[in-house]
Amino acid sequence: MKNVGFVGLGTMGKPMAEHLLANGFRVTVFNRTKARAEELVSRGASVASTPAEAASDADVVITMVSDDAAIGEVYDGTEGLLAKARPGTTIIDCSTISADLARKLGERLTKASIRFLDAPVTGSKQAAESGTLVFMVGGDAAVIEEHRDVFEAMGNKIIHMGPHGSGAATKLAHNTMVAIHNVALAEAMAIAAAAGVDPKSFLEVVTAGAAYSKAAEIKGPKLLAGDWSVQFGLALMLKDLKLATGFADRLGVPTPMMSAAKSLFQTAQQSGLGTLDLSAVAQVYEQWINRTFHADQNNK
Amino acid sequence: MKNVGFVGLGTMGKPMAEHLLANGFRVTVFNRTKARAEELVSRGASVASTPAEAASDADVVITMVSDDAAIGEVYDGTEGLLAKARPGTTIIDCSTISADLARKLGERLTKASIRFLDAPVTGSKQAAESGTLVFMVGGDAAVIEEHRDVFEAMGNKIIHMGPHGSGAATKLAHNTMVAIHNVALAEAMAIAAAAGVDPKSFLEVVTAGAAYSKAAEIKGPKLLAGDWSVQFGLALMLKDLKLATGFADRLGVPTPMMSAAKSLFQTAQQSGLGTLDLSAVAQVYEQWINRTFHADQNNK
Amino acid sequence: MKNVGFVGLGTMGKPMAEHLLANGFRVTVFNRTKARAEELVSRGASVASTPAEAASDADVVITMVSDDAAIGEVYDGTEGLLAKARPGTTIIDCSTISADLARKLGERLTKASIRFLDAPVTGSKQAAESGTLVFMVGGDAAVIEEHRDVFEAMGNKIIHMGPHGSGAATKLAHNTMVAIHNVALAEAMAIAAAAGVDPKSFLEVVTAGAAYSKAAEIKGPKLLAGDWSVQFGLALMLKDLKLATGFADRLGVPTPMMSAAKSLFQTAQQSGLGTLDLSAVAQVYEQWINRTFHADQNNK
Amino acid sequence: MKNVGFVGLGTMGKPMAEHLLANGFRVTVFNRTKARAEELVSRGASVASTPAEAASDADVVITMVSDDAAIGEVYDGTEGLLAKARPGTTIIDCSTISADLARKLGERLTKASIRFLDAPVTGSKQAAESGTLVFMVGGDAAVIEEHRDVFEAMGNKIIHMGPHGSGAATKLAHNTMVAIHNVALAEAMAIAAAAGVDPKSFLEVVTAGAAYSKAAEIKGPKLLAGDWSVQFGLALMLKDLKLATGFADRLGVPTPMMSAAKSLFQTAQQSGLGTLDLSAVAQVYEQWINRTFHADQNNK
Repeated sequence: MKNVGFVGLGTMGKPMAEHLLANGFRVTVFNRTKARAEELVSRGASVASTPAEAASDADVVITMVSDDAAIGEVYDGTEGLLAKARPGTTIIDCSTISADLARKLGERLTKASIRFLDAPVTGSKQAAESGTLVFMVGGDAAVIEEHRDVFEAMGNKIIHMGPHGSGAATKLAHNTMVAIHNVALAEAMAIAAAAGVDPKSFLEVVTAGAAYSKAAEIKGPKLLAGDWSVQFGLALMLKDLKLATGFADRLGVPTPMMSAAKSLFQTAQQSGLGTLDLSAVAQVYEQWINRTFHADQNNK
Repeated sequence: MKNVGFVGLGTMGKPMAEHLLANGFRVTVFNRTKARAEELVSRGASVASTPAEAASDADVVITMVSDDAAIGEVYDGTEGLLAKARPGTTIIDCSTISADLARKLGERLTKASIRFLDAPVTGSKQAAESGTLVFMVGGDAAVIEEHRDVFEAMGNKIIHMGPHGSGAATKLAHNTMVAIHNVALAEAMAIAAAAGVDPKSFLEVVTAGAAYSKAAEIKGPKLLAGDWSVQFGLALMLKDLKLATGFADRLGVPTPMMSAAKSLFQTAQQSGLGTLDLSAVAQVYEQWINRTFHADQNNK
Repeated sequence: MKNVGFVGLGTMGKPMAEHLLANGFRVTVFNRTKARAEELVSRGASVASTPAEAASDADVVITMVSDDAAIGEVYDGTEGLLAKARPGTTIIDCSTISADLARKLGERLTKASIRFLDAPVTGSKQAAESGTLVFMVGGDAAVIEEHRDVFEAMGNKIIHMGPHGSGAATKLAHNTMVAIHNVALAEAMAIAAAAGVDPKSFLEVVTAGAAYSKAAEIKGPKLLAGDWSVQFGLALMLKDLKLATGFADRLGVPTPMMSAAKSLFQTAQQSGLGTLDLSAVAQVYEQWINRTFHADQNNK
Repeated sequence: MKNVGFVGLGTMGKPMAEHLLANGFRVTVFNRTKARAEELVSRGASVASTPAEAASDADVVITMVSDDAAIGEVYDGTEGLLAKARPGTTIIDCSTISADLARKLGERLTKASIRFLDAPVTGSKQAAESGTLVFMVGGDAAVIEEHRDVFEAMGNKIIHMGPHGSGAATKLAHNTMVAIHNVALAEAMAIAAAAGVDPKSFLEVVTAGAAYSKAAEIKGPKLLAGDWSVQFGLALMLKDLKLATGFADRLGVPTPMMSAAKSLFQTAQQSGLGTLDLSAVAQVYEQWINRTFHADQNNK
């Protein structure tokens, strides 16, 4: 079986590494907080002290870190994984990073005879735990095929998007849709509620037909319950929308819908909702119409 | 079995009437073009010469016409259904009309001891033919229950939204979401395509996960095929967005997302796309990025 | 000198009538609250008991009322001015009404051999008092010339816009610009203030150069003082933006800027700012950046 | 008199240097294309071969270059002005650069005992030639006072905005207003024109009253003439709007108006209008309403 280095054992990374172990891969893990890495020893993982060590004997290295800055920390420097990764190794980054960084990493690693794939995922903690992530992958199709076994251990859909950077670009465009769907639900529910329609019945109509969105199915019940517990944080989505705006601006694509959504998420952030679930953008509309979508409040 | 009068045998109305006949109701139909009404005689329908005649012996009258103006034509005047509808009759309007008209009709008919439900549907011609429409109904819950058999003959979901006008209000808010979902798909696909991502792969990601919408599932393949054949016309959706804008303005609900979408549909209309499917709003983005989402063109 | 009937002695109408009297016209005035009309007797006005009476002996009738509904009240019915206006009379409406109503009035009065001009004004109470109003006039150029003396008694600029309804259309488009200029100032000041720039200095730059607008000159000092006393009410501007939206929607003009401005004014209205000056839309931005443009507050 | 180094003799820089010479300052100029520098010798200027040389004996160094990247080129390296500028020298940057760079330059130079002012200007080539520029200055008020004579040689208004970076921040917010005013004019004129109002008369109303903006006064006649000759290029304004968006995003200010304007300028750019004057954004509206504001075309 392949030797896999795994760097970054956060909410998503840890269950991903567990699935690799469960599927028989030899996995060497690195995490900044070492204790979290050691939790995987009983499942068969080796623990590395540096990213470099995790990469030194690996056929494949997977990185799952927080952002562009963290990539620099684990790839570069004397302890970085590039210090020890051998020519021929494949590095798969599953983090959500900027498309520019992914493209540049691809070019740089190719020159060093290291294969690179930018492979961010769609799916939450639950999908990581159940091994049903969707990978959107930028890079060489042959490299993807060579490591299909690695991807399939962690997810159930591996989609080739195009050259280096395409995976990251897809993730930004994808998240833009999620953001817009959330505000679309809130705005439509506000119109309906202001007209005297019961929010619960409105959601029932939405999920039954042509207006259905995954966002409505997942977040709609949260709006009805006034439950803002975090699945995907509002501040994080706002950060993605700002990244996507800069990205679209460089590409020269007019984005009236994303811009309108971004202003609403920014408004929510300014109202102190940043630490809540992204669906809390609906509270902006609740304030506007001076009532909530929450059942108890509606009975007032 | 109940006697049902059915007024308006268009694309939606005719299969709805056929389901009533198939379920054993005695149905008297009226249509402006009489030939279309006579096509139902072989299935057991009686043909009326006026709306009034269709209503004269009915327990329930269903109207399915094009807009507010058409309601006036079939309800009022010496040949209108109100000229002959008996006290105690239930009139169910399934047209997409303004919430104000629905509310006023409800008040007026109640005074005349006629029961009224505004019950627009979500679902296309296919749903009408397969009897799987979703009804969003405004009016008295008890009246809905009394005629559940009638609704269930034509649809598989009957949702009570609130008082008179709530059905029509729901339809407007619902269609707003459909419009926004369509432009969200187009905008995200434009960002992805401009970044070099294959549109087909992008759609695969969208429909696989958190960015899924019914609009993406139904219209996405049309974008990839450059197939603008009409399922729901662009000009019609623009009309609904204008109605919804006026409605939200009267309610005092800020609608930044709907407004942005309306400007895009209006732009599409001004470019001569009004007679195409509403998904053709994507062509506005195609022009902006100077390429199409259509596979053949992409290969250029 | 011409006999002038004058209907509607509100904030604007009364000083306009006074200027006609001061310029030697014989003026017969009507106002719903008769006491206000009688205040003009000492200046030489005759007082009519009905609009009809004000029109009965007039060469020119001027109407200055609040909205479309008020037009119906003073023009129609047995006491309405059309009941007594003679063929050949010229009726000049200076109210802000919908372009559709102005166009229809023009057609209807022309058939009755009465000449009609829709002539709304730009300029506040101060301009009415100093006789420096700007008239934007729809109708026949020759009729405007014939009554240039009447216009010049009240204003210093008389601009022919086009056929009946053009005056009203111009007023809506004009007010749209005023609304947008106000939110542009607020948004730019919010960016500057959030960056640590002194609002007073920022306004000095704005009014000194290429970013100058009349709105910035007039409303800027109000923002710096936190003075929301009414020059033009926020709720009134929101009403105009809704009228303008319906108008543009009927014309088929995409209006992304006006729509964005309307959402902001609606947001302000929902926050309880409707009774303040329209410049209070800036408070929406103040809440967003969690500080005011008002000097005392800035020192906190 | 003070010794002044002047780096960057473009459209704006050259007349600014000429005014310094005319006011008796000893000026040493540097320009990448040396021939342009030598044109100033007859007016008394000395010509330097490097920015360093221009700074070596200067009390004040003024830089007027194109963007952030150009700042790096003239400030840094062995030939850069910082290689020779003496402690106590004041460097005044009049370029339009990012607020972040200006703030960082301020911090860095202060540590090197060099005084820094970010002092971008509002006003075009004409204002530079007539010595009537407006300076918006970030930095220490005492330093501004010390060099008031330098500023007054080139402009007629010197406004202190706040600490380092405030000048640059003001410039971005200022240009945002200019952009919005231009699209406001285009949108209002489109509504008016679509309603049959003569564009020339509409502009007359706008410039006569409450809807007046400097943009309308300067650009309005260009719209009526179809004259898109460049005063301030459309692509340049789009670049500024993207900078301002990134800036506002970092500050956390919702910017619905600027975003809507940016989408319109981006649309114009995608239509090939980038090399025209920024007022050509009006052509987007002309295409939408299928007619031009240009008189000849209107007569069709």
